[in-house]
Amino acid sequence: MIVIIVNAEVMSEFLEDFTKESQFVQAKSLEESGCKNYCILQNSKDKNKFTFIETFESEEAIEAHKKTAHFQQWRNNVYEMMACERTTMRYTIMK
Amino acid sequence: MIVIIVNAEVMSEFLEDFTKESQFVQAKSLEESGCKNYCILQNSKDKNKFTFIETFESEEAIEAHKKTAHFQQWRNNVYEMMACERTTMRYTIMK
Repeated sequence: MIVIIVNAEVMSEFLEDFTKESQFVQAKSLEESGCKNYCILQNSKDKNKFTFIETFESEEAIEAHKKTAHFQQWRNNVYEMMACERTTMRYTIMK
Repeated sequence: MIVIIVNAEVMSEFLEDFTKESQFVQAKSLEESGCKNYCILQNSKDKNKFTFIETFESEEAIEAHKKTAHFQQWRNNVYEMMACERTTMRYTIMK
């Protein structure tokens, strides 16, 4: 399993749009066979900050995810909504 | 539900000790009635960097967690192992 943590900050005027776009990509991603979990967290102190925790079964599953229409649509649609560049880090689950 | 994300960086000479301490606190925390999930992630590029994702059912559950012997033991035992101060942020789960 590979866990991807994405930190994103949205400009406040796009908060509602970003939420809708992200709910959509979450639902569609969870339908991918290689996507084992997809959790979106909203910072309790700053509602414009989000952390996505996405669990994929393999590198191949991540590559397949990046090629999906729903991911590409999300990436394109939220591009102008971001307050700063997103950060993405990969993790393994400690046993 | 409240999700706590803790980022921790351990000095490399303590990596094994930190792992053992963290596995212990993870197992004990999951026995708490208010702790709904407790996942420890290890950064794929830097094995000394860890992200704890802890889900509690309420503020009261977090306060109860902080008072447990296993949490206090972990906090004390890993104190000298840290490369820098840990960061802790609270989140809600986006629906």
